[in-house]
Amino acid sequence: MDHLYRFEHQGAARHAVERDGVWRLVEGDVFGTYRLGAEVAPAARPLAPVLPSKIVAVGLNYRDHAAEQHKALPEEPMIFIKPSTAVIGPGDPIRLPPGVGRVDHEAELGVVIGRTAYRVPRERAGDYILGLTCVNDVSARVLQAKDVQFTRAKGFDSFAPLGPAVALGLDPRALDVEGWVNGERRQASNTRELIFPVDHLVAFVSFVMTLLPGDVISTGTPAGVGPLAAGDRVVVKVQGVGALSNPVVAEP
Amino acid sequence: MDHLYRFEHQGAARHAVERDGVWRLVEGDVFGTYRLGAEVAPAARPLAPVLPSKIVAVGLNYRDHAAEQHKALPEEPMIFIKPSTAVIGPGDPIRLPPGVGRVDHEAELGVVIGRTAYRVPRERAGDYILGLTCVNDVSARVLQAKDVQFTRAKGFDSFAPLGPAVALGLDPRALDVEGWVNGERRQASNTRELIFPVDHLVAFVSFVMTLLPGDVISTGTPAGVGPLAAGDRVVVKVQGVGALSNPVVAEP
Repeated sequence: MDHLYRFEHQGAARHAVERDGVWRLVEGDVFGTYRLGAEVAPAARPLAPVLPSKIVAVGLNYRDHAAEQHKALPEEPMIFIKPSTAVIGPGDPIRLPPGVGRVDHEAELGVVIGRTAYRVPRERAGDYILGLTCVNDVSARVLQAKDVQFTRAKGFDSFAPLGPAVALGLDPRALDVEGWVNGERRQASNTRELIFPVDHLVAFVSFVMTLLPGDVISTGTPAGVGPLAAGDRVVVKVQGVGALSNPVVAEP
Repeated sequence: MDHLYRFEHQGAARHAVERDGVWRLVEGDVFGTYRLGAEVAPAARPLAPVLPSKIVAVGLNYRDHAAEQHKALPEEPMIFIKPSTAVIGPGDPIRLPPGVGRVDHEAELGVVIGRTAYRVPRERAGDYILGLTCVNDVSARVLQAKDVQFTRAKGFDSFAPLGPAVALGLDPRALDVEGWVNGERRQASNTRELIFPVDHLVAFVSFVMTLLPGDVISTGTPAGVGPLAAGDRVVVKVQGVGALSNPVVAEP
């Protein structure tokens, strides 16, 4: 299984592909054609693996989370957008804004789009996927309930940790998805439990809006969401992808 | 009053500033430093004047529209995001997607951000504004009611006509905002009627998320929204900015 990383290399952000523990520089365009170049040392702290123009996230897409939130199962995917400015990388701090109250973790599988996708039929969704990553759909729960629209509650800068890598060629249909806080597992499910699976989501979202290379569909979170506090360390794990770990800090 | 246009010039997209009917090329960065260069012929069909990374739009921000929708006045701005992929320019067709039912026009004043804005105090909002434009917040009304989240209903490709120009240095506090369909005025109000004025919105949105140069805050629509049909011509007028005119077509 190849993993695509992005990292600082000689003063520039570069992509590298890790295979069997060996990192090699990407020469070319990860969304077009590229070859693998020189071997490099694994980065101690990779960057967010892609810079999406938008994250299209899905609400209530695990049966257990819908039950936890006392919601009926949706007939269609319910989508919202997290802006590019919310993205942070592995190790970057999730910043709790002052005065917003409870802020929750939401461990999610992220689908990274590989090429421009518009009105893609479900059976061809795989052709438009670069690979899979971890997303933490950080959510200010009080504002989410107050606003009804999720944009403010889920749109703060630093509320979209992404990474650590994009797993290339990984089948999304039966992967464990977990959320951990301070070494304790709080969320655990499997993408078999998705109400709307990945191919359905690619078709649904791309019927509405063009997905650009690097855009991410975040597929929803399982049960077990809970509040974060300054000083916490939150980890999202997706089987076959890796572990996305971020500290939590309070903003003044 | 200077107006900033974007247009095709010798095979490339360029900015020009129109002053007293004379267009001159922008040499440099419209978000940084630039000078005015050679005079050019006014473009018959300008492009969207900026390419926002996101449009942050505001729901229910005119007293009359809130009444029309039978909604209480909001305590705080209610924000949502229209993605960059929804943007079209003057003259480009608004495409009615198949099977989505009623699609409405919403004439709005758009505020174009001039430099990176994060946690901007209200009294300094003007320093971060490049100028003002017209936005049509096209909305699939049936989906908007069904989804609760506005993202799908307002996020279709072509659902964010923008332009025709950015009026530089225009005071946003008392401007007529109008929506016209097939030569008939359907919406007419004035930015004096905004529940949350422009400086409030810049402060509110930038408390949540970083606004990037070229990003647009769309300030909400007055009463009189109504359905569009294939063959219609819809025009958004903002006093001092100009008229943003788009045809409406049905998609197969």
